[in-house]
Amino acid sequence: MNRTELKALLDAVGDGRLTAEAAQEQIFQVLSQKPFEDIGYARVDHHRASRQGFPEVVFGQGKTPDQIAGIAERIVAAGHTLLVTRTTPQAAEAVRAVLPDAAFHPLARTITLRQGEPAPGKGTILVAAAGTADLPVAEEAAISADVMGNAVERLYDVGVAGIHRLLAEQARLRSARVIIVAAGMEGALPSVIGGLVDVPVVAVPTSVGYGASFGGIAALLGMLNSCASGLSVVNIDNGFGAAAVASAINHLP
Amino acid sequence: MNRTELKALLDAVGDGRLTAEAAQEQIFQVLSQKPFEDIGYARVDHHRASRQGFPEVVFGQGKTPDQIAGIAERIVAAGHTLLVTRTTPQAAEAVRAVLPDAAFHPLARTITLRQGEPAPGKGTILVAAAGTADLPVAEEAAISADVMGNAVERLYDVGVAGIHRLLAEQARLRSARVIIVAAGMEGALPSVIGGLVDVPVVAVPTSVGYGASFGGIAALLGMLNSCASGLSVVNIDNGFGAAAVASAINHLP
Amino acid sequence: MNRTELKALLDAVGDGRLTAEAAQEQIFQVLSQKPFEDIGYARVDHHRASRQGFPEVVFGQGKTPDQIAGIAERIVAAGHTLLVTRTTPQAAEAVRAVLPDAAFHPLARTITLRQGEPAPGKGTILVAAAGTADLPVAEEAAISADVMGNAVERLYDVGVAGIHRLLAEQARLRSARVIIVAAGMEGALPSVIGGLVDVPVVAVPTSVGYGASFGGIAALLGMLNSCASGLSVVNIDNGFGAAAVASAINHLP
Amino acid sequence: MNRTELKALLDAVGDGRLTAEAAQEQIFQVLSQKPFEDIGYARVDHHRASRQGFPEVVFGQGKTPDQIAGIAERIVAAGHTLLVTRTTPQAAEAVRAVLPDAAFHPLARTITLRQGEPAPGKGTILVAAAGTADLPVAEEAAISADVMGNAVERLYDVGVAGIHRLLAEQARLRSARVIIVAAGMEGALPSVIGGLVDVPVVAVPTSVGYGASFGGIAALLGMLNSCASGLSVVNIDNGFGAAAVASAINHLP
Amino acid sequence: MNRTELKALLDAVGDGRLTAEAAQEQIFQVLSQKPFEDIGYARVDHHRASRQGFPEVVFGQGKTPDQIAGIAERIVAAGHTLLVTRTTPQAAEAVRAVLPDAAFHPLARTITLRQGEPAPGKGTILVAAAGTADLPVAEEAAISADVMGNAVERLYDVGVAGIHRLLAEQARLRSARVIIVAAGMEGALPSVIGGLVDVPVVAVPTSVGYGASFGGIAALLGMLNSCASGLSVVNIDNGFGAAAVASAINHLP
Amino acid sequence: MNRTELKALLDAVGDGRLTAEAAQEQIFQVLSQKPFEDIGYARVDHHRASRQGFPEVVFGQGKTPDQIAGIAERIVAAGHTLLVTRTTPQAAEAVRAVLPDAAFHPLARTITLRQGEPAPGKGTILVAAAGTADLPVAEEAAISADVMGNAVERLYDVGVAGIHRLLAEQARLRSARVIIVAAGMEGALPSVIGGLVDVPVVAVPTSVGYGASFGGIAALLGMLNSCASGLSVVNIDNGFGAAAVASAINHLP
Amino acid sequence: MNRTELKALLDAVGDGRLTAEAAQEQIFQVLSQKPFEDIGYARVDHHRASRQGFPEVVFGQGKTPDQIAGIAERIVAAGHTLLVTRTTPQAAEAVRAVLPDAAFHPLARTITLRQGEPAPGKGTILVAAAGTADLPVAEEAAISADVMGNAVERLYDVGVAGIHRLLAEQARLRSARVIIVAAGMEGALPSVIGGLVDVPVVAVPTSVGYGASFGGIAALLGMLNSCASGLSVVNIDNGFGAAAVASAINHLP
Amino acid sequence: MNRTELKALLDAVGDGRLTAEAAQEQIFQVLSQKPFEDIGYARVDHHRASRQGFPEVVFGQGKTPDQIAGIAERIVAAGHTLLVTRTTPQAAEAVRAVLPDAAFHPLARTITLRQGEPAPGKGTILVAAAGTADLPVAEEAAISADVMGNAVERLYDVGVAGIHRLLAEQARLRSARVIIVAAGMEGALPSVIGGLVDVPVVAVPTSVGYGASFGGIAALLGMLNSCASGLSVVNIDNGFGAAAVASAINHLP
Repeated sequence: MNRTELKALLDAVGDGRLTAEAAQEQIFQVLSQKPFEDIGYARVDHHRASRQGFPEVVFGQGKTPDQIAGIAERIVAAGHTLLVTRTTPQAAEAVRAVLPDAAFHPLARTITLRQGEPAPGKGTILVAAAGTADLPVAEEAAISADVMGNAVERLYDVGVAGIHRLLAEQARLRSARVIIVAAGMEGALPSVIGGLVDVPVVAVPTSVGYGASFGGIAALLGMLNSCASGLSVVNIDNGFGAAAVASAINHLP
Repeated sequence: MNRTELKALLDAVGDGRLTAEAAQEQIFQVLSQKPFEDIGYARVDHHRASRQGFPEVVFGQGKTPDQIAGIAERIVAAGHTLLVTRTTPQAAEAVRAVLPDAAFHPLARTITLRQGEPAPGKGTILVAAAGTADLPVAEEAAISADVMGNAVERLYDVGVAGIHRLLAEQARLRSARVIIVAAGMEGALPSVIGGLVDVPVVAVPTSVGYGASFGGIAALLGMLNSCASGLSVVNIDNGFGAAAVASAINHLP
Repeated sequence: MNRTELKALLDAVGDGRLTAEAAQEQIFQVLSQKPFEDIGYARVDHHRASRQGFPEVVFGQGKTPDQIAGIAERIVAAGHTLLVTRTTPQAAEAVRAVLPDAAFHPLARTITLRQGEPAPGKGTILVAAAGTADLPVAEEAAISADVMGNAVERLYDVGVAGIHRLLAEQARLRSARVIIVAAGMEGALPSVIGGLVDVPVVAVPTSVGYGASFGGIAALLGMLNSCASGLSVVNIDNGFGAAAVASAINHLP
Repeated sequence: MNRTELKALLDAVGDGRLTAEAAQEQIFQVLSQKPFEDIGYARVDHHRASRQGFPEVVFGQGKTPDQIAGIAERIVAAGHTLLVTRTTPQAAEAVRAVLPDAAFHPLARTITLRQGEPAPGKGTILVAAAGTADLPVAEEAAISADVMGNAVERLYDVGVAGIHRLLAEQARLRSARVIIVAAGMEGALPSVIGGLVDVPVVAVPTSVGYGASFGGIAALLGMLNSCASGLSVVNIDNGFGAAAVASAINHLP
Repeated sequence: MNRTELKALLDAVGDGRLTAEAAQEQIFQVLSQKPFEDIGYARVDHHRASRQGFPEVVFGQGKTPDQIAGIAERIVAAGHTLLVTRTTPQAAEAVRAVLPDAAFHPLARTITLRQGEPAPGKGTILVAAAGTADLPVAEEAAISADVMGNAVERLYDVGVAGIHRLLAEQARLRSARVIIVAAGMEGALPSVIGGLVDVPVVAVPTSVGYGASFGGIAALLGMLNSCASGLSVVNIDNGFGAAAVASAINHLP
Repeated sequence: MNRTELKALLDAVGDGRLTAEAAQEQIFQVLSQKPFEDIGYARVDHHRASRQGFPEVVFGQGKTPDQIAGIAERIVAAGHTLLVTRTTPQAAEAVRAVLPDAAFHPLARTITLRQGEPAPGKGTILVAAAGTADLPVAEEAAISADVMGNAVERLYDVGVAGIHRLLAEQARLRSARVIIVAAGMEGALPSVIGGLVDVPVVAVPTSVGYGASFGGIAALLGMLNSCASGLSVVNIDNGFGAAAVASAINHLP
Repeated sequence: MNRTELKALLDAVGDGRLTAEAAQEQIFQVLSQKPFEDIGYARVDHHRASRQGFPEVVFGQGKTPDQIAGIAERIVAAGHTLLVTRTTPQAAEAVRAVLPDAAFHPLARTITLRQGEPAPGKGTILVAAAGTADLPVAEEAAISADVMGNAVERLYDVGVAGIHRLLAEQARLRSARVIIVAAGMEGALPSVIGGLVDVPVVAVPTSVGYGASFGGIAALLGMLNSCASGLSVVNIDNGFGAAAVASAINHLP
Repeated sequence: MNRTELKALLDAVGDGRLTAEAAQEQIFQVLSQKPFEDIGYARVDHHRASRQGFPEVVFGQGKTPDQIAGIAERIVAAGHTLLVTRTTPQAAEAVRAVLPDAAFHPLARTITLRQGEPAPGKGTILVAAAGTADLPVAEEAAISADVMGNAVERLYDVGVAGIHRLLAEQARLRSARVIIVAAGMEGALPSVIGGLVDVPVVAVPTSVGYGASFGGIAALLGMLNSCASGLSVVNIDNGFGAAAVASAINHLP
C-alpha cells in the first residue's frame, strides 16, 4: 500500500464510499505483515511499496531459476504485484510452475504478474529508442512502467542519423508527461529530444555498439554532457531504473 | 512566455479577468520578437522560454565579463529573467554596470535579475548537500531553482558518515516534491535518501575530494550504480542542470 | 607455529604445564621442517605460519584439480590447516580423493581441513554484506576468518537502500572487534557502517553490478573515498584478503 | 610546388602560355632548394609542399616567440606561405617584427602570411560549430582551410539543443563539398549533420565542457560511435588537422 | 536513386538519350516508394540512397538470421543493392534461402547482392592492411567500397616493422584517390602512409593485439595523434565506416 | 568522551578513585553539550568523540583561513583536542591569532592543539615511507596518530630499490603493533613489508611520481593487488585516514 | 643469416677454415632466396634473420591450425629455425603432420624446430617469475630465448611476499648477463631484482590477478614506475618480446 | 667503484701497472665510506655505484634548491660524479654556489659535475627524437648517458611523417650499440627504427601532444604494442631511465 493508495482509501472513507471498519481492516492487514521475510538466500521486503511506491522488484541477474521462483512466490503470496527483471526463459518456466498466471516478456527479459490495480499515473510515459538493438532496454522500461500503473507509449527506431523520422513525431513527444530515451553508440537522441520538449527526459544509455563505444561509456558520457536542459541519466542498460524515475514523476499528485 | 504562462493568460481571458485585446497584445509582443538575436559572439535565443519553460541561461565559463554583460543586456531588454551560471565577481561587476538591479551570489557563482513573476512550481524542491565543500554546487542548484519559480528548501551537511543527522530530518525529506542531492567523495548520500522517500531524487556528483575521487568520477559512478529507485543523475558539478530537471518535474501540471 | 602459538607454548613451560623437553621437541619439529618444498609446479612454503600467523593458503584460480590436490596433500602432511580459495567442485572432488576429511563450501568456493586448534582471536569478526549477490565474497571472508581461529558472525542483505534494516542491528555492529563489509554496485555500505562504530572496518568491494559498475570499480572508488574514518579497503572480490586483515587485527595480543 | 601547381605549370607550357624555359627555371628553383634547413632547434622542411600539397606548418605550442619568428622567417624567405597554429600574441609580435605583413588571428590563435596564390579547391568547405566556446577550434580550421586555397563558409552556434536553427540551414549544408563540424560536450552535432548530407563530414571534438566531458573525451567518443555514415574524426581541438583533411578532399582533381 | 544517379538521368534526357517520359517514370517510381517500411523489428529506410548516396546497410550484429533475411528481402524487393555487415554463415544461409543470388564473403563477414549499376567513383580506393589479422576489417572495407561503386585495390601485410615492403609500393599509394589503412597493435601504418601521399587517408584502428592494446585503444590513440596531415579516423574495427567515408570522397563530382 | 575514556571514568568510580558525583558531573557536561553547533558554513560535531573515538577533525582543503580559525575555536572551546589537516601557513597564522598554543607542522601541513590526555593506544604505530617525497603524507599520518594518543615511530627512505636498508630494520618492523606504509611510484614497499610481519599493515599510496604514475594510481593498484596478506589500503595521499585506521586498531582493548 | 653468422663465416675464411668458394656459395644461397613469399594469407619474410638477427616468428593467435602449418612449412623449407608462439595443441598437431620433428611446449604454448646452430649469445639469460601462474609467460620467454641461441636459466616462484627466497639467490642473479622478470598482480618483483643487480632487467607484466589488476594494468604501471634503474618493460604477457630484447642484448659482440 | 672499475683496478695490479698497496688503499677507501649518510631530509646512498654501476642520482622534482645543493655537496664530497635530473635554474644556482664547477644543461634540465673518469661503455648510444618538442627528454637521456661514460650520438627531428629523413640515416642507426628513441604524440618512431636494426632499442614516450595524447598515454601504448622486436619501454618522459638501461647494456663486458 503506497502513499497514493493510502490516500485513495482515506478519501473513500471521507466520501462515505467505505466504512471506517473496512478501511481499518485493510490498513491493519498491511501493518500485520512482517516488514521482511527471511528465506535464507534473500530477505523479501514486504513494506517496500509503502516506502517507495512499488513492491520489491526481483533483480534476476545472478540468481538461479529456483531462487527466483521462491522469491516470486513470497511476493505474490503477500498480495503484491510481481516484477522480475534481467531474467531468462528458464527462470520464467520455474516461476510459471508455481505461478501459472505469470507472463514472460522475452524481448524485455522480464516476468510480471499483476495483482490488484496499481495507483494510476497522471499522464503518459513515452519510451523512445534510437535503434532496433536498443529495444531490450526500452522494453524493460516500458513493461516496468506499465506494471507500475503508467500509461505507456512507444516510439522506436528514431535515431539522429535520420532526424526527419523524429521530427515527424513532435506532437507525440509534446503530449507525454515524461519521456524515457534509450540509445547506445553515440547516445545523441536524448539531447535532440530534450531540445524539443519542456517535460522531464530520463536518458538511459545502452551497451549497444562496438569498438570505442566501450560497452555504453560513449553513450553515457554523451548523455551526461548534454546541453539540453531537463535531462537526467540512469545507469547503462538500466531500463527498470528509468521506469522507476519516470513513474515516480508521473505519480506526483 | 512558456506553456504555463500562456495557459494562465488564456484562463484570464476565459474568466473575464483580461480582455481579449490585452491578451492579443501580450502574445503579439512575444511573436514579434526575433527568435534569436545575433550579437557577433553569440546568438541570444529569445524563444527558449516558449520551448523549454525558462529563458536562455548564460553559461559563464569561458566568456569575458564584457561578453556576459552584453548578452545579459539583450536578455533583460527582451523582458526575460536573467540567470548567469559559473561566473565571477568581475563579470558581476560588468553586468551591474549596465544592469544595476542584478544580484550576484558569490557562493553559487551566479548572477540573477528577476523580471515578472515566473509560473510557480507545485511543491517544494529540497536541496540537500553532503558537506560544506559541496555548497557551491548545491547553491547553484538552489538559486537556479528559485529563479525558475520554485519554492526551495536547503538541508546541508548531512553526509552519510553521521547518518543520524539525516534521519532526524525525514519529515522534511518526505514533504518535498523533488529532492536534489549534491555529494562528492564517495557520493553515497543520494542512495540513502533515495531509500527513504518515494519522490524523484536528482543526484548531482561534485568534484569535491582528492586522490581516487578523480575529480568527481567516484561520486558519479556511485550515483549511477545506486540500488535506490527513483534516482537519476546529472553531470559532475552541474547544479544548474539538476535544478532544470527538478523544476521541469515541479512544473508538471 | 605462529607467534601466538609459540608464546602459549613458552607460557605453558613457565607455568609448569609442559616440560621444557616437550616444548623443545615441538619447536624442534617445526625447525626441522624444510622452509619450502618444491613439487615442480609450486614451492609449498612450510614456514609461512611462523612468519605470517597462518599456513600458506592455496589460491585456486588457474590451477588444475590435480595441482590443487597435490599441494593440499603436502600442506596437510606437514600438519598444517588447509585453506583453498577461489576453487571449484571438481577441485574439491580431487582433494577429497586424497583427503577425505576436507570440506567444500560451494557458496564461498573454498575447501578447508582443520588440523589442531588455531590460536583464538580476542573478539568477534562481523561479516556484513549489502545484497544476496555479494554472498560468495562475504562467505569467502567468513570461512577464511573462521579457519584462522576467529569467532565469526554474519549480517547479510543490509544494503543502504533499506537503511532501517541496518540501523536495527547497531548492537551487533558495536559488539564486534573488527567488521568486514562486502558490497558491490555503489559500495556505500562501509561508509554508513563506518560512521556508526569506532572499531576498524575492512571494506571489500565486489564485482556485483552492471553497466557503469565496471566490474567493481564503482564500489572500489566509493570505498576509497569514504569520509568515514577507521575504514580501509582490499582488492575487488578479495574476501580472503579481508579476512586476513581482520584476523591479523583480531589476533593482536 | 605541389601536384596541382606542377600540373598547372605544365598545362601552361602545353597551351603556349609559358615558354619551356620559364617553366624549367621555376621547377629548377624548387629542385635547387635544400630539402630541409637546419636552424638548430628545428629542421625546416622546404619540400613539404611537393609531398603533401602545403608547406610545413609551424605548430606553435611549446615554442618560444623567438623560435617561431626564426622558423617563420625561413619559410617566408623560401617563398612559401606561412601558417603558425596554437600560438600567442607574444609570438605574433615577434613574427611581425621580422615579417610586418604577417596577420594574427586572435580567436583562431594563428599567424598567416600568404605568398602567391594557392591552387584553388574545387568547392566550398563549410565550417560548423555547435557553440560559442567551440569557436577557437572552428576558426583555426577556417583560417587554415582558407590559407590552403579553399573557399570557406562558417555556420556557428547551431548545437543540437536548438535543432531548428540547424534545420533552417540545410541548403547551405547541401551546397558544401566538405563539412567540418566542431563540437564539445556531448559532440552530437556531426551525427545530426552527417544524417542530412551525402558529402564527407570531418568531425573535430573540442575540449569544451566540464565534469564528465573529461577534456573532450565525451565528444570524441560520441563522434567515433556516430551512426551517420561518411563521417570521420580528428584529434580533440585539432582544427588545423580537420582543415588539412578537408583541403586534401577539396583539392582532389 | 542518389544525387549522381539523378544527374545521370537528367543528362540523358538533355542529350536525347532518354525521353522525358521514361525519366519521369523512373523518378516517379522512387517517389512513390514509402520512405520507410515498418516490419515490426525494424523500419527499413527506402529513401536512404537519395539522402546519403547508398541504400540502407544492414548492421548484422545482434540480429537473428531470420531478422536479417527479412530485412534483406525488403531491401531487394525495393530494387536496392544489398549489403549486410558483421554477419555470420548462418545468416548468409537464411538470406540465400530467400535470395539465392546473394553472395557471402566469409573473411569480410558480409553478404552482398548487387542490383543495377551503382554510380561509379572517380578514382581508385586503395585498402591497405598492416598484418594478416587485420584482414577481416580491411576486407569489410574493400567489399563495402566495391559494392558502393568504387574501383578497389588491396595492399596487405605492409606493417611498419618491415618498412621496405611499404616503400616499394609508393607508386600504388600515389595512384589512389583515397586510401583506407587498417592497423591494430600500435597503429603506426596510417602515419607512415600519410607522410608519403597528398590524398586523404582514412585510418581504421582494429582490435587486433593483446595486453596493453586494450581491444584497439592503442591503435585508435596512435591514429588520432598522428602528426601526418590529411588523416582522419573512424571507430575501431569499422571497416564499413571507412568505406563510406572513402566512397563519399570518391563520388564527389 | 570516547568509549575508552568512559570506561576509565567508570573504573575510577568502581575503584573509589572518583566519587559518583564527580563522574556524574563529567558525564552530564558531555550530555549537555549540543550534539553539533551550526556556525553558518559548518556544523561542528561535538559528539564525534563518543561515536568514533576522536573529536571532529578539520579537513583544511577548500576552507579559508578565517573559516578554519572559526571552527578551531569552537572545537577548542568545547574542550576537545584540535587537529587540522591539509592546511597552509596562512591558516596556521589565523588559528594562532585566536589559539596561541596551537602548533603548526609545515611538512605534515597540519595544525594541532592538545587538550587533556587522550586514551593511550596499546602499542606502537610504525610509519614507514619509501622516499623523501612521500614525507608529507607520512608525517600527516604520524602527527595524526600521535595526537590520537598513539606511540609513533618513523622509518623513512627505505624504498625497495635498496632493499638492504629495509631488511636491516626488521626488528623495528616486528616490534610495532600496526604499520603504516606510505609509498608512491610503483608502491611496492607495503608488499615487501607485509611479507615480513604478521601485524596489520595499512598502505597509503602517494601521488609522488610522474608519467604513468597517473597521480598515484600506479601505487594504489600495486597495493590493492599485493600478494602479501594482512594489508589494506586507504585513499591516495590520505595520511590522516591511515592514522585513523591504525589508531582504531591500536586502541582495541 | 644474421650479422653474427655472417661475421663467423668471414672469420672462417680469414682463418683458412673455409674456402672462399664455400663461403661464396653460402652467401649466394641466402641472396638468391626471395625476400618474402606470398602464400595468400601471409607474406613469409625470408630476410628477417639478416635484418633482425632471427627468422620470422609466427604469432599463432588468430590463425587456424592449417594456416600455421602452411607458414611453418615454408619457413622450414627455407632452412630457417621455426618458432610459433601463442598457439594450441591443435595447431601443434597440424604442424607435426607436415613437420614430424617439431616440438610442442604446452606450458609455453609454443612450437619449435631447430635447424642449424644459432649464433650463441655471450652470457646467460635468467628468467625469473613471481608465481606459478606467471609460468606460461615465463616459459614463452625461456623457450624463445633458448631457440635464439642463448643459455637460459630459470628462477621461479620468488615473489616479493617471501623476499627471503629471492635474497637467497643473489649469486644466480648476479651471474646473469640479462634478466627477464615476469610478474602479475602488483608486479613488484622487477623493482626488487633491479635494485640488486647492475645488468639490464627486462620486465614483463602478466595478466595474472583479478579485480583491480585489470588484466595486467596494475603490474604494467608498477613496472613502468619502478625506481630501480636499468629496468625496461614490454607489453603485458609478451614473453616472446622480452626474449627478443634479452637476446638482442646478449648477442651484442 | 662499480664492477667495471674494480676489474680495471685488479687488471692494473695484474699487469704490474699498479702496486697491490695502491689498489688496496683505493678499495679500502670505498669500504670505509659509510653505506649511506643521513642528512635529515634524505639518506645519501654512497654504495650505489658498487651495486648499480653509477652513484646515486638526485631526482630534482619536489626538492628545494637548498635540499638539492645539500645532497649534491655530500655526493661530490664522497668523490662521486654528480647528476641531478628534473631540476631548475634556481637549483642550479644554489648548487653552483657550493660547487662552482657544476654545469647546468637548461634544455635537459640537469646539473652535472664529473669526478674521475667513468668506466667507458663498449660502443655508441644513439639518441633519436621524433620532434623538437621531444628534445628535453632526449637531452636528459643524452646528458645522463654521457656522464655515465658512454659515447653518445644524437639524431633529432626524424619523425615518421617524413620517413625519408630517417631512412637516409640508416648507416648511423646500424653503427650504434644501443638506440634510445624519444617520441610523443602517436609514438611510432621506435617501431620504425626497431624494424631497421638488430640492436636493442629503448623507447621513451614523451608527454608531448594534446587532446587524445592524454599526457603521453597514446605514445606509451603505441610503444608497448610495437610489432618490432628488440624494443622495450620506460616511463613517460623518463629520459634518465632510458639512459640507465642503455648504459647498463653498453657496459656489459
